[in-house]
Amino acid sequence: MRKVAVIGIGLTKFGYHWDRDLISLAVEAGSKAIRDAGIHQKDVEVLYGGTMSGGLFINQEHLGSMLPDYLGFKNIPSVRVEAACASGGLALRQGYIDIASGLHDIAVVGGVEKMTDIGSYSITKVLATAADTERESVFGATFPGLYALMAKLHMHKYKTTEEQLAAVSVKNHKNAMHNETAQFHKEIKIDDVLKSPMIADPLKLLDASPISDGAAAIILASEEKAKQLCDTPVWIAGSGHATDTISLHDRQDLLTLKATVEAAKQAYLQAKLEPKDIQAVEVHDCFTIAELLALEDLGFIKKGESGKFTESGQTEIGGKIPVNTSGGLKAKGHPVGATGIAQAIEAVMQLRGQTGKRNTNAEIAMTHNVGGTGGTAVVHIFRR
Amino acid sequence: MRKVAVIGIGLTKFGYHWDRDLISLAVEAGSKAIRDAGIHQKDVEVLYGGTMSGGLFINQEHLGSMLPDYLGFKNIPSVRVEAACASGGLALRQGYIDIASGLHDIAVVGGVEKMTDIGSYSITKVLATAADTERESVFGATFPGLYALMAKLHMHKYKTTEEQLAAVSVKNHKNAMHNETAQFHKEIKIDDVLKSPMIADPLKLLDASPISDGAAAIILASEEKAKQLCDTPVWIAGSGHATDTISLHDRQDLLTLKATVEAAKQAYLQAKLEPKDIQAVEVHDCFTIAELLALEDLGFIKKGESGKFTESGQTEIGGKIPVNTSGGLKAKGHPVGATGIAQAIEAVMQLRGQTGKRNTNAEIAMTHNVGGTGGTAVVHIFRR
Repeated sequence: MRKVAVIGIGLTKFGYHWDRDLISLAVEAGSKAIRDAGIHQKDVEVLYGGTMSGGLFINQEHLGSMLPDYLGFKNIPSVRVEAACASGGLALRQGYIDIASGLHDIAVVGGVEKMTDIGSYSITKVLATAADTERESVFGATFPGLYALMAKLHMHKYKTTEEQLAAVSVKNHKNAMHNETAQFHKEIKIDDVLKSPMIADPLKLLDASPISDGAAAIILASEEKAKQLCDTPVWIAGSGHATDTISLHDRQDLLTLKATVEAAKQAYLQAKLEPKDIQAVEVHDCFTIAELLALEDLGFIKKGESGKFTESGQTEIGGKIPVNTSGGLKAKGHPVGATGIAQAIEAVMQLRGQTGKRNTNAEIAMTHNVGGTGGTAVVHIFRR
Repeated sequence: MRKVAVIGIGLTKFGYHWDRDLISLAVEAGSKAIRDAGIHQKDVEVLYGGTMSGGLFINQEHLGSMLPDYLGFKNIPSVRVEAACASGGLALRQGYIDIASGLHDIAVVGGVEKMTDIGSYSITKVLATAADTERESVFGATFPGLYALMAKLHMHKYKTTEEQLAAVSVKNHKNAMHNETAQFHKEIKIDDVLKSPMIADPLKLLDASPISDGAAAIILASEEKAKQLCDTPVWIAGSGHATDTISLHDRQDLLTLKATVEAAKQAYLQAKLEPKDIQAVEVHDCFTIAELLALEDLGFIKKGESGKFTESGQTEIGGKIPVNTSGGLKAKGHPVGATGIAQAIEAVMQLRGQTGKRNTNAEIAMTHNVGGTGGTAVVHIFRR
């Protein structure tokens, strides 16, 4: 397989875009990425795009045909992939495989979701289709409820506290203060989280990532093209992807996301790296407990110790391993299909030194994107 | 890129499966394919699956996580792709790219759709999400309506007759008589088509493919693995994929599916073959006019001459180019996500000589799978 680099990035602001549709967001991100790479639309040979549910959110499937047309890529192959909230990460991986295979030299990979302004369905009902409809959702198990089960068990088993969960949120809101595309620019305190409305005990409103609209795109190139076109390519050093039971209740251990463990193993192996080598990481913090579990499953800390680790500031910028410097899903926003690509953009910006006040001087960064309660996980390692 | 072979096939009966869900159909097809390949579940390294709309048909996204679990493939990477009615063909292509890249050696690629027994939505409304929702469907343009426009123009421009359109349907029903998994086993006459209820002038009920449930799966292997495991591998000689405007009204020429032309060009080039070399072809006959356009766009006959060509019997078994020996979408059935894989299975069965009374002795066969009115096309060439 050939080496593959990121040579361009483009991102919309995440948040509520009441006045814009999915196409408009996707075109903004894609066009910015093309401009950032210094290429032309005609140079793009293939498109990979992730959305969770064009069907249920905006009543539009077949976005793989629609997007290249609106982006001005005439007749190119274009692939929509879906893995719930890991759709963006999966699009990146499939684009990576395509370029690595030698089939194409330049790809746009992107993710997009338009979640506000939906019609007859509720957003929670759409998101619930990422769980097992007939064996979880139909019995009332929403995502806050499922992640709350994991949080309760982590608290019971490892003495993790609500304050430690809240510390994840406080840190991510702090990081987002310096990220202009983030949905929230508002510092919060532990007490704000603890006093926010209860959603699913022990998770409160401020333990949860928000509803967002947004799009993200990156340009991938083969080694030869990257060296021709770009002075600061960022290389994909490792790519991993794994699945697990879609239903939480089918797992032997509710506190280990096997898909994360397995995807990380693949990525570390390919990159010939270990957890201690990673200098910045974007993890999938759809709820605060998810960030804690990710730190453990990615190998940064022993199972059960992530609460104390976070509370002690080790995941802040300047700490042992800076986590979610972008603000994470919690504060940057979580337009589900776009999230995996937005994570990759933060990694690339860190490695390029474009992150300003949230800079980590990292030379190696990781991204971790999850679908459902861990039914899918996609992990990538990037290096300068 | 490495050579890739089909080493196993599995198919459910197509039709109305009121008593079964999507998972049950997918597991049947996948298990049959594994058995046919003579491998074990643990040998499968990756899964690629196509469905058009798990979200709208069965209220279930994230099938990429669900299916490997139910099929007994623990924690493997699994990718759901979607390109409306070309979802199956696209899954095949993405599985092909994966194995060709060297990443994995054995893949299951499949397609599945459960279309009957849906809840609050109508099936026509779900299918309409494959067209441009805001610029076509919302104005009442259903798929029968859009294909009817093409048929009217073909009749106007090339003197194509309703009898010639009907001849497509008559032939496909005849072929399906010898295909035990086909939805319909009923011979029809030109007059039956002409007298069937008008759907969208000039297309009648018997010009249209039916609503179906069903699943199809094949096992792909690298050259080395294929030679180890299989005495009769069928090789993927060429793969092509292209897109076009999702909206019919945005095209310069309503009678040329540019995506088909471009995808076929890629496949012919890779296989170093020409239209005259193809000895059997499965084309995307969602409506009778679609088969006529496909014959022209794939290069078997000059633009405008497909009606006479079909009427004269040249697309029957024994004719110049046998088309849709399986019965096609019209008579074999059209569970949209499964169709592209089912086409590949017919090609493999023809090349293996397993087609009994519909045998063509072909050594080279082609498949052609379309999404929407030609917003996506995927073309594959297979050889013994």
